Formats: sequence, structure tokens, C-alpha cells
Amino acid sequence: MTHAALLAELAACIGDAHVLTGAAAEPYLTDWRQAFTGRALAVLRPANSSEVAQVVRLCAAAGVAIVPQGGNTGQVAAATPDTSASAVVLSLLRMNRVRAVDLDNDTITVEAGCVLQTVQEAATNAGRLFPLSLGAQGSCTIGGNLSTNAGGTQVLRYGNARELALGLEVVTPQGEIWHGLRGLRKDNTGYDLRDLYIGSEGTLGIITAAVLKLFPLPRAQCTALVAVSGLAQAVQLLQRARAGFGAGLTAFEVMSLACMSDVTRAFPQQRLPFADLPEDAWCALLEVSDHSDGPHAATRLEAVLAGALESGVALDAVVAVSGAQSAAFWHLRESITLALARAKACVKHDISLPVSLIPEFVRATDQALATAFPGVALRVFGHLGDGNLHYNLLPPTGASNADIQRLVHDRVHEAGGSISAEQGIGQCRVEDLQRYKSALELDLMRRIKLALDPQGLMNPGKVLPASGSLRVP
Amino acid sequence: MTHAALLAELAACIGDAHVLTGAAAEPYLTDWRQAFTGRALAVLRPANSSEVAQVVRLCAAAGVAIVPQGGNTGQVAAATPDTSASAVVLSLLRMNRVRAVDLDNDTITVEAGCVLQTVQEAATNAGRLFPLSLGAQGSCTIGGNLSTNAGGTQVLRYGNARELALGLEVVTPQGEIWHGLRGLRKDNTGYDLRDLYIGSEGTLGIITAAVLKLFPLPRAQCTALVAVSGLAQAVQLLQRARAGFGAGLTAFEVMSLACMSDVTRAFPQQRLPFADLPEDAWCALLEVSDHSDGPHAATRLEAVLAGALESGVALDAVVAVSGAQSAAFWHLRESITLALARAKACVKHDISLPVSLIPEFVRATDQALATAFPGVALRVFGHLGDGNLHYNLLPPTGASNADIQRLVHDRVHEAGGSISAEQGIGQCRVEDLQRYKSALELDLMRRIKLALDPQGLMNPGKVLPASGSLRVP
Repeated sequence: MTHAALLAELAACIGDAHVLTGAAAEPYLTDWRQAFTGRALAVLRPANSSEVAQVVRLCAAAGVAIVPQGGNTGQVAAATPDTSASAVVLSLLRMNRVRAVDLDNDTITVEAGCVLQTVQEAATNAGRLFPLSLGAQGSCTIGGNLSTNAGGTQVLRYGNARELALGLEVVTPQGEIWHGLRGLRKDNTGYDLRDLYIGSEGTLGIITAAVLKLFPLPRAQCTALVAVSGLAQAVQLLQRARAGFGAGLTAFEVMSLACMSDVTRAFPQQRLPFADLPEDAWCALLEVSDHSDGPHAATRLEAVLAGALESGVALDAVVAVSGAQSAAFWHLRESITLALARAKACVKHDISLPVSLIPEFVRATDQALATAFPGVALRVFGHLGDGNLHYNLLPPTGASNADIQRLVHDRVHEAGGSISAEQGIGQCRVEDLQRYKSALELDLMRRIKLALDPQGLMNPGKVLPASGSLRVP
Repeated sequence: MTHAALLAELAACIGDAHVLTGAAAEPYLTDWRQAFTGRALAVLRPANSSEVAQVVRLCAAAGVAIVPQGGNTGQVAAATPDTSASAVVLSLLRMNRVRAVDLDNDTITVEAGCVLQTVQEAATNAGRLFPLSLGAQGSCTIGGNLSTNAGGTQVLRYGNARELALGLEVVTPQGEIWHGLRGLRKDNTGYDLRDLYIGSEGTLGIITAAVLKLFPLPRAQCTALVAVSGLAQAVQLLQRARAGFGAGLTAFEVMSLACMSDVTRAFPQQRLPFADLPEDAWCALLEVSDHSDGPHAATRLEAVLAGALESGVALDAVVAVSGAQSAAFWHLRESITLALARAKACVKHDISLPVSLIPEFVRATDQALATAFPGVALRVFGHLGDGNLHYNLLPPTGASNADIQRLVHDRVHEAGGSISAEQGIGQCRVEDLQRYKSALELDLMRRIKLALDPQGLMNPGKVLPASGSLRVP
């Protein structure tokens, strides 16, 4: 089939207006970070799962590859096609319905193109919490969140996107619809297909809908900003907080004082509520959620912090006395990325490690970087409760970003950590994956890819190298 | 290779004393429920992962199938070989070391043959909680728990075995060791092999070790027994409890009054703390875990129960005033299975449904059973918080168990439920799976099985039919 004939069939299937080419297609062809621009035969915007299935069957018959795309907010260009113009981009944005809310089952059923914030709001309107929360929530879609197993700030308590999904609807590479939209908390009938699709970045099939868990809304939340002298003390504070609050500890973030200083310099209206901290101090942001009431939450938080201050684990601590102050603490944390954007250059790493290894990892890696790249400046922050650091740095002039990343990732790998804690592989980290994963694990992944997508048409070149090198040796 | 030659090589690998045949092998060849007795070439007891890998390589070279076995406490005979005497049973019982406890990371690394209770105790000794808890915990192994994705009484708060595992070590069907023992809470580097192995009942590989999550020990627990007039009221009570306690609600069990009466009749020293309940009443058992203190837990529990009583959701309620009374409430729940064992016959179903559908499902299915099998007596209890019912019944004389199960499972399937919520498929439910799973889902499972175990030697005939019918059509 010629490409023109295929496009005509696609237009007959989903409507002319939803087969975009030329200028109309362009916004879909560049990734959010504007690091990659691809080309495509067309951008397709099907309206429902049945149309997605038909589109996939037409493309499969024509041997045309498909790049699924949600809100196009990913960090690793997983939703951006290559430059061959041989693939179509399949946008899920028109599939944005909340299909159902089941209060007694505490579930919500949504289509893949639902914006995360829409899901959060639908939950809140129903008197429930959908806890997935991240910077891009106003534009990222739940399908993309599931495809990349998104993380965010509430993982400590509620888990990654994976832990929040009970069931999926998926269009297979053969254009069949897997009706796995089960609202069940227990189901031991066969292999866990759900978790195989989650996090596979559209390379095994296209997630078109999901049943998600809802939670009761906490009655009260209480936030504190705590200064500690180092990461070892931050880990001790984390342990105290876990023991003191259990699942009531819903966030535990850390930021180096260097990050905080960047924020207050860039945004002078923001202030750190501590006087005179040592230069190598860290700040921890704790959020406690409580199902009793506000005073109970505050009393508990104050008790844990008092213990931490008395024992010397904490240098100073401020409990937010209002929602506005709590928002201001969170705003400090959320402004780091914007403040860092003002730097000439910033080399970023999204790493995770066992929490117990983090203080020594950071100490030794800071030192190794300072030796290898004199003048480097560290800007580290992250979700300490999840062992996930945004290990960022401002490189000295002339340093090679690739060399810096190699040094950091080699050390992460040696420590048993992950070089992509929450952002995925996409096309940015395919080579890294080949370097750091064992030959056995890569082989297992290839076997699964070949078994489910033998034509290699689902998001080729993402996660694993494109299909030419896919054959099992 | 002859079988004798293989056995000699196996003995050279793991030691003569650990290649069991004849009478020594017998205890491994009958399932826990004594419903299935198989035969085996030998029972092998390797000491470590490296020996497991060698054993698998020897068997793979000889084309001999392997049936992995943990504590042999499963409900579906997944660890029992067929009667052909052509396979070996590979027992993990000698691999019973706790390899490491990492307090700052809140993880424990254990070998597959560790008895669940040993893992619980190692956690408690370290000042942490490992929450997986089920009847067989004194003899089941963590490897078996993970292979069947075990549930139990704490799933409501902590999830199934799947949610408790961070990393795995697995010996593949080719006898290689996948070193996936990662203690990471976030890791988005490729396909989720971990969750593919979990719940696959040894058909894709042999889990030899795991990194498990630990939790802070709650400061206090408080238990209540509540009488409600029906399952709809039990669901309302569940919602009140979820809203009131959040993650503090660590168990929510229901038992029909018929079950409770069987218990108090069979064990007269046990008493239900309610006078004169209507015959169709139900009891709910609530457990609240608290990180503040005992009085706070009791006050919260009493407040929620007072609301339930005032609004008519609850008929009566008793909060345990001591650990002994709390244990007595749990003992009522845990004695149901023993009490039912005294019946002439009992047809059991391990089903799950969306919680919202349970009251109507039970009402309509009770009625359908009464019509189809006059004289049937229902004995239903289960984990309402997880939507998981042990929908059991005492059949009238002459009724066909298969017909009864068909009626119940057909209705579960129609309601979007699961015919095996926590027990798995094993060999008992292979035919059911073929009946109720879609052709597409079975095909996806077959593709994965073939991709990872092309020889079909890993626990053949479990989950999916034996390899003859495995080829993708």
C-alpha cells in the first residue's frame, strides 16, 4: 500500500480533520524539552478505542510504525518520532473522558488522554483523592503517566503510577483490544499483563483507558521545613518521621542549601525561614496527612520535630501555621527547576539508590566530580523518601556533559541504583540502558518485545534499539 | 541422556543427600489439600542460587521438566508434579537465609525458602513490620508467596505480595541468574520483569531471593467487632472506616452470622459478643493501626463506630478492651475454616468483585443457588476491604460440585470479577482459566510463556495447559 493510500484509509476511519500533516502536525513532532524534532507521515487523533484499534490494524497491514503520544511532556522524548518520516504519531488527546467513578469501590475509570489534573479534579469532586501529583499535571495525560510509570511527590505514601492502576484497556500491536479494565484489588488469574504494559513506553501496545484507585481525602495536612546539617541527618529525620507518622507521612523532599539559595536569589519574594545555616546544610520538606484533624496533625508533627531538634538530628524547623505558609514551603521546592533554568548550563540526572547509601554516594560522587571537573557546582534535590535524587550540577566551562553523566551513572550503577528513577528511557537513554543493563535482562526484554510486537512497529527505537537489532542472538 | 545419568549429574552438583527418591521424596509429591498426588524423577534440594541454576541447566539439557516448590501449602496444587514421573520437583526449602536487613532503606533481603513467619520475625526483631500475613505463615515460604502473589488479611493497607517486593533474583528456564535484587522504590529502566515473575507460579522462572519492603511498627492497634444487618451496610461501614482512618484501617473482614454460628457451635469456648442478631446479619472485623498511641486509636475507632450506630449502619459494636479480646475477635474469624471442615462437604470459591457490586452479587447468587440446588446453605466470609470473598457453601446431598462452581463462577465472570482472587491457578483452575479468559488474553500469556520458556519445561501444565497446546495458532 502506498503512503497516500494508507492516509486515505486512515482518514476514512477517523475523519479527515483528525489526520494532521504539515503545519498542523508540527506541535506533535518536537519533544517538550525541545531537544528532539522528528518527522511523521501524519499525526492521527482517533476518538475512541475502537478507532485506535482500526488505526493500528491499518498501520500494521501497511508495515507503518506507530508512536503513541499523550500530553507530550515526557523528559526522554519517548513520544517523538525519529526523522525518517516513516511512522505515524498517534495522539490520545481526544480520548479524554472520565468514563466512571465508583465510590463504593474507590475507583475511577478514565481514558488515556485525560489530563492528570482532570483526573485529580474528578476525584476531588467525588470526595476522593487521586494522589498522583507532578509538575506537568496540567498538561500530561494519564496514559502517558502509566506508559512511563510516573512518580512525583506522593510516591512515598501512594506509590508510582503503577501502584495506582488496577486495570487497563490496551490496543495490541495487532490491533486487538485487551479488555483488562478490572476494578479488582485481588486477581490472581494468570500473568501480570497490566504491569508489563505500564512503564513500557508504548513499545508493547497502546494504553487507551485505565481503572485507577481512589483514596479518602485526608482531613488535615501539615507541612514543615527542617534544616539539617547533612544528608545523613536527613535520613535519620526520615526514619523518625516514618516511625512517627507511618502512612501519614505523605512527602519527604530534600533540597541542598545551594538549591535554596538559587531560588531565593532568582525569586527574591521567596524566603527561607532560617537564619545563618552552614553552607553545606540541607533542607527537608515534610508533609503529614491526617485523618483525625488539624490540631492532631500539628501536635504529632511538632512532637517528632522536637525530638529531632533535641537529639541534634535537626538544626532548625518551622511548622507551617497556615495553608499559605505551607504553599510557600512547597513553592520553594517547586521553584528549583525554574531557578536552575537561569544557569548557563545544567547537567541533570534522575537517579535512585537505596536510601541507606545516599549520604555516602553523594559525598563521594561530589568529591569525584570536583576532582574530575574542577569548578563544578552541585545542585542536588529530590524525593529522599523514595531514594530518588535529582542529582544536578552546573558544569565548568568546557566540560563534556557526556563525560559528567558517565561518571555519575557509572557510580550509580556500581551502587546498585537506577539511572532513570522516574523519567523512563525513551530515546534519550537507550544507549545508557544497553550499557548498564545486564545482557540477560536485555535479552529477556527483547524476547518480550518480539513476542508481543513481532513486526517491531510499536514506538520503535524507544526503550530498546530499533528492530534491526532486536532478534534474539 | 538417561534419567540415571541425569540423576548422577544432579547428585554430583548438589550432593547425594539432596537428591531424594522413593519414600524420602513422598512428602513433596502430594499437595497440601491432599487432592493431588504426583510422581517425580526425584526431589532436588539445592543449597543456593548457583546450584539452582546448575540444576536447571542440567534439566534443560536433558529436556526434563521442573516443578518448583516452597512450603507446599498452596491451594491449587501448583507445586505438585503430574503423574508421569517425568519431571523433577525443585524444593527451595534449604535456601532459607535472611541475607540482609537494611534499616535506613526499610528493606529485607531473603531467600525464597524462608518461611513467611521467619521473615515477619526478622522484621520485628529489627523494629520493623513485614505485613504479609496469612493462615499458613508458619510453613509457607516467601518464594511461594511471591510466585502466587499471596494475599491475606493486611492487603487493604499494604497490598498483595506483589506490592511488597522491590526486587527479585530469578533463575531463568535457561539456567541463568537474573540479578534483579534491587532495593529501589523507583526504577523506570525497562520492562517490569519483576511483576511478570510474581504470580506466574514458577512457569516462567524460579524466584530464588527477594528484596522486600519493611514498614514502621504501629504504636497501637485497636480491633472492633461490629454487627450489621447486611452486606450493603457492611460496605457503608467500610466507607466510613476508610474516610475515618485512611491508611490506619489495616483490616476489614466480614463473616456471615451463619459462619459465626458454626464457629461457636464447633468451639463452645468461643463466643460472639452480641445478643439476638437477625438470622441474616453479618459481622465485620475492623483493625485500626495507629502511630500515635492506644488511646488515640480507641477514641477514633469509637467515634467512627458511634456514627455508624447512630445512623443505623451498624446494629451493634464492641471495641476490644485488651489484646486478649482483640485476639479473641480474630480467633472467631480464623476459626471459620476449621469449623467448616466439620461439614460433610463444602464447596469453596475464592472470588473477587468490585466492592460496590458485592451486596447485589451475593443476594442474587444466593437466590440462584437456592433455586438450582434446593437445600444449599451459604457460608460466606472474606476480605471485604479488598472485594475478596470466600464464597463457600454446604451443598445438598447429590448436588454436583462442578455444577455449583460453574454457576458461581459464571456469575462472577459476568460481573467482571475474578474466579481466583488470591489462590492462583495451579493445576486446579487451568480449565477455568481457559473458559473465562478472553482468547486474546490467553494468547498474550502464551506468547510470553513461549518467549521466556520455549522448551516448556518450567512447571508445565500449571496456569496454562501443558506445552503441546502452547504454540501460538
